[in-house]
Amino acid sequence: MSALQHSHLKDEIARVFGTPAVVIDLDIVEANIARLQAACDSKGVANRPHIKTHKSPELARLQIEAGARGITCQKLGEAEVMADGGIDDILISYNILGEQKLGRLGALQRRVRMIVAADNPVTISGLPQAAAIAGRDLEVVIECDTGRKRAGVETPGEAVELAKLIAASPGLTFAGFLMYPPEDGWERTQVFLDTANAGLRDAGLEAGMVSTGGSPNIPNIGKLKGATEHRAGTSIFNDRMQMAAGVATLDDCALTVYATVVSRAGPERGILDSGSKTLTSDTGGLDGHGLILEYPAARIAKFAEEHGLIDLAASNERPGVGEVVRVVPNHVCVVVNMVDRLVMVRGDRLVGELPVAARGKLG
Amino acid sequence: MSALQHSHLKDEIARVFGTPAVVIDLDIVEANIARLQAACDSKGVANRPHIKTHKSPELARLQIEAGARGITCQKLGEAEVMADGGIDDILISYNILGEQKLGRLGALQRRVRMIVAADNPVTISGLPQAAAIAGRDLEVVIECDTGRKRAGVETPGEAVELAKLIAASPGLTFAGFLMYPPEDGWERTQVFLDTANAGLRDAGLEAGMVSTGGSPNIPNIGKLKGATEHRAGTSIFNDRMQMAAGVATLDDCALTVYATVVSRAGPERGILDSGSKTLTSDTGGLDGHGLILEYPAARIAKFAEEHGLIDLAASNERPGVGEVVRVVPNHVCVVVNMVDRLVMVRGDRLVGELPVAARGKLG
Repeated sequence: MSALQHSHLKDEIARVFGTPAVVIDLDIVEANIARLQAACDSKGVANRPHIKTHKSPELARLQIEAGARGITCQKLGEAEVMADGGIDDILISYNILGEQKLGRLGALQRRVRMIVAADNPVTISGLPQAAAIAGRDLEVVIECDTGRKRAGVETPGEAVELAKLIAASPGLTFAGFLMYPPEDGWERTQVFLDTANAGLRDAGLEAGMVSTGGSPNIPNIGKLKGATEHRAGTSIFNDRMQMAAGVATLDDCALTVYATVVSRAGPERGILDSGSKTLTSDTGGLDGHGLILEYPAARIAKFAEEHGLIDLAASNERPGVGEVVRVVPNHVCVVVNMVDRLVMVRGDRLVGELPVAARGKLG
Repeated sequence: MSALQHSHLKDEIARVFGTPAVVIDLDIVEANIARLQAACDSKGVANRPHIKTHKSPELARLQIEAGARGITCQKLGEAEVMADGGIDDILISYNILGEQKLGRLGALQRRVRMIVAADNPVTISGLPQAAAIAGRDLEVVIECDTGRKRAGVETPGEAVELAKLIAASPGLTFAGFLMYPPEDGWERTQVFLDTANAGLRDAGLEAGMVSTGGSPNIPNIGKLKGATEHRAGTSIFNDRMQMAAGVATLDDCALTVYATVVSRAGPERGILDSGSKTLTSDTGGLDGHGLILEYPAARIAKFAEEHGLIDLAASNERPGVGEVVRVVPNHVCVVVNMVDRLVMVRGDRLVGELPVAARGKLG
């Protein structure tokens, strides 16, 4: 895209929507969807993208049309919006607890194929309520932790015990294992899986689904012998974190925040109209809060809620007040979650708006 | 509130809304509104609360009914919602730039009294467009920086030059100064103001409004000789940051996030269903990401998007899976901005829901 086309599109977006505007380029989105699908296909692993990044049934349908087996959600509210949008194979990679949520899960499972995760007996003890409401068996995978210290049982022995508990529970089907290997933890994940599978065999059970996850793990798809599916979310848009992880280039970043320079309070300082209520305080462990495409040497040093405070000391070129710039965020998933609509473009052409339909929904 | 009543309310909120739920106690909200008004009244300074914290016209009306002169907004989208909700005296403490926004500002100014801030000539050069649309003069205050290094001119000389520019611009009225003194910067703010006022006098101008700001500055209201108004936002709800600043106690915290313990992945670890998409990554410079009322020795150590990772090592009491807990967030303003609705209670009684009407609006 030439600088001139660029400038034309910035003017148009500022005129039509104002700034800050969260903008996705559909050409890049489609290329990113195709690349993830090809990565899965080449390894014979099913693609089950995580929709927490885009929260849009329209984009989920593009992923399914490209070949995805189903989708992954992180909460019921997201799954409800996706089912309403026509998606019929949904994994919720999360412990679902409490009567209110079990009722909603049962209602969903009546309409579409639902798979849920569990890492403890309390969660498992509630799930038969959902199956009873659905009137058919609910598939449950055991979440396993192989080093991230997030959710998940920490030993293969616990995984096998929970698998047996699921198999013995009315209305539940043991479906397999949900893994989220650290990028450097695939060998120990293999040991965990092999040990757990041996335990399953002794119990007369089998893991039909073995799901791995993570966009930084896309190069590792297929490394885990026995894996059947992969969940990647961020790769549909990419961001500075994915660039830092070496799995995306700037050309793969589909989402940018269009922001206006609202103040040049000092010679070496500037202020964007995008602060922690737009770009969020998620640093993702990186220095600075985003990459300003037009001023790559500028550093978004700090946020107020509606101010992005730019340090221009290292930047020879400096923007004037009123100038619109584009920012690649550190972590795109949380930025999408801040807005009700994304602006869609294709290259230098404005296409329209896309609702972030699954944002702000009940847990 | 006794532990028993407490537990009853937690069950009811989990059953009706599910978790995470962002809950405000109206008894505490009303007490906080009254306390801010009394602090302003006792110093003869008008109260112009900042609605960025609650984003609710209903709560803004409570503030006006308690005696506030008007409100402060940080962006046009907020002001539009507030004007629709019946608020007729609105300061936007922000540089408004670009044709789209100037058109919206003019349309607002036709309906209600609008005052806007500026800290540079480019902003001032655009504002007559809004006044022309409104068909009447627009009041403009100069934003002054006395140490925060955010927006604002850095010298009294610049402030006077901009005041003259405003006075010479068609359709604009110079209305005064917008200050946001650092909590330890009131003396130099006084020097700035006195010097600027002397410059104004030489130019035949006068600052009708001198606005100070900040909830941590509530104890400092009245310290600035010549101040006419104060803007405080967070004090309507309070949070861990306000407690750390010594301007609120736990009893003054009106907002808590009701969260469910969804996993006890290890003996010293737990996981809440509230991560960076609920509590946000704003630390406010504090250790940990919130205070769990039931387990004050537990530390919310880290977030995934929908996981709050709790370190229980220092906590003798430890929650079980499925237990609902209440979290006082570090920074309440950004938490409110994550949800479309707040749940309202009074003491141990569920009252209903309140839309966060000005969330997610156009810049």
